[in-house]
Amino acid sequence: MNIGLDMMGGDFAPLEAVKGLKQFLSVNTSAANIFCIGDEAVVQPLLDELQVASPLLHLVHAPEVIGYHEHPTKALKEKQKSSISIGYYMLATGKIDAFISAGNTGAMLVGAMFSIKPIAGILRPCVSGVVPKSNGETGVILDVGLNADCKPEQLNQFALLGSLYAQHILKVNNPKVGLLNVGEEEGKGNLLAQATFPLLKENTQINFIGNMEGRDIFTEKCDVIVCDGFTGNIILKMAESVYDLAALRNFDQDTYFNRFHYENYGGSPVLGVAKPVIIGHGISSTKAFTNMISLAVQMVESDICSKMAESFQAIN
Amino acid sequence: MNIGLDMMGGDFAPLEAVKGLKQFLSVNTSAANIFCIGDEAVVQPLLDELQVASPLLHLVHAPEVIGYHEHPTKALKEKQKSSISIGYYMLATGKIDAFISAGNTGAMLVGAMFSIKPIAGILRPCVSGVVPKSNGETGVILDVGLNADCKPEQLNQFALLGSLYAQHILKVNNPKVGLLNVGEEEGKGNLLAQATFPLLKENTQINFIGNMEGRDIFTEKCDVIVCDGFTGNIILKMAESVYDLAALRNFDQDTYFNRFHYENYGGSPVLGVAKPVIIGHGISSTKAFTNMISLAVQMVESDICSKMAESFQAIN
Repeated sequence: MNIGLDMMGGDFAPLEAVKGLKQFLSVNTSAANIFCIGDEAVVQPLLDELQVASPLLHLVHAPEVIGYHEHPTKALKEKQKSSISIGYYMLATGKIDAFISAGNTGAMLVGAMFSIKPIAGILRPCVSGVVPKSNGETGVILDVGLNADCKPEQLNQFALLGSLYAQHILKVNNPKVGLLNVGEEEGKGNLLAQATFPLLKENTQINFIGNMEGRDIFTEKCDVIVCDGFTGNIILKMAESVYDLAALRNFDQDTYFNRFHYENYGGSPVLGVAKPVIIGHGISSTKAFTNMISLAVQMVESDICSKMAESFQAIN
Repeated sequence: MNIGLDMMGGDFAPLEAVKGLKQFLSVNTSAANIFCIGDEAVVQPLLDELQVASPLLHLVHAPEVIGYHEHPTKALKEKQKSSISIGYYMLATGKIDAFISAGNTGAMLVGAMFSIKPIAGILRPCVSGVVPKSNGETGVILDVGLNADCKPEQLNQFALLGSLYAQHILKVNNPKVGLLNVGEEEGKGNLLAQATFPLLKENTQINFIGNMEGRDIFTEKCDVIVCDGFTGNIILKMAESVYDLAALRNFDQDTYFNRFHYENYGGSPVLGVAKPVIIGHGISSTKAFTNMISLAVQMVESDICSKMAESFQAIN
């Protein structure tokens, strides 16, 4: 297995990426090769300094970096020697099996859509976020930002993608799928939610349990929360801020509230594209990088993308 | 000043309503008359038992109650002697200046729209929620549920309504108005947010400061958060659940996290209708009732509805 890691992405890269990598290698049992993609002149001295060495490590030189404020499509086109461009090239050509970056989110999304492409039958890929449930389990919410405006058919597909992710990555048996809404009864909600409910109800590939209200998000009621990318993005960022609020009150080390810290999950996988792509938070720390590499390993090991492709093939 | 209170609304009514009323009277300095609307045979013995007596109290007999699961329009039409119907009749005819109920939310909204009517020029009234900010201040978010699907012009009106509410009720000078969105820059968001941004920017009656992300909701960045009723409702209920999560971890008495408890705010005012209407939570407790009565007094004292009417007249 070969994992590609963009060493140049994130506010604290490459240092935090190198430290995350070191941490991963110290606990890793997967024998995954890690391809570190970045500026050799910057990354190699850091690897040396922090004594990160392993036969599993391979440095891939990328002389360019796509900055945070660059236009995604333009930058990908013009900076073909950037770490993100090279990462996607390696993923598309099979040199790596998964690609991770905490760099320019737009460029990561454009690359996923155009270099890797959606799985056949998928209308629009999406990005998922993690939900720390109060019973100790972990749920998934999607979309959290790729599709601000959605159609009911897209939400119905997100439900299946999230369900497969919960099953194969979070190891939830027969995951319960809920539609984020403003009331419990069928018929409630905005036009999108009203039109989505019957599709979810008829979808035999998922275990749909009905509408979920805002108060249900962190409860055991469901494992997969389906919503449009506008609502999901706001909720994800609001949930992340709950950690900050807890930190302000010195509760951030509480075993539950600590789980709201983004770094515990690392990054957000893009679901519905043909190969595993993980997008990291701009502020990614050591722990976030470690967890993103672990998630990439899990996604490759479980062959989640093929499972998604099979499920969508079954529909078509 | 005359305040109408539905004694029969809420899961724990009339007992909690009576206790809330007692608490209000013990601290009240407003000399407001309180009209207690409910079943005399049930309410009077409770008032006696709890020794709630005051020349400011007036019991108005309402032999019927609209239940939680009744159809709002049908129930209002058929149960004209219900506490909600009588409350709206008294408000419409000027016998009371504000009406409070923790009963059937749908019936309360229908009554507000059809018995009291929107202020001239208002496309759609909305319901506002309270935002406990981490700097100790309080903000407002609207709509939180009346309009699941919104038009940009409606959001622009919510901005002014929220701004006037923040100014006159929360006593915020020149309140900062933010548009809830998925990114900071103009042009971000779903079609609704994209189309709303320029309207808010051009609105000279508000102090628009730009887009707010999910992580900004509880910060000092803005005082008034504008969004559609679908997103707002989910956020409000999710925020309420933060209190429940804190309680599970024994942090609910923390001075900040305790502010997420709905009872500290009591109820949600309907904004954009001609007279003050406050809708309580189904689970309203003593404290919630006390705070709803106080809020009603504030809304009447500040003459907020006239101020809203004047501001909307200025536009037309």
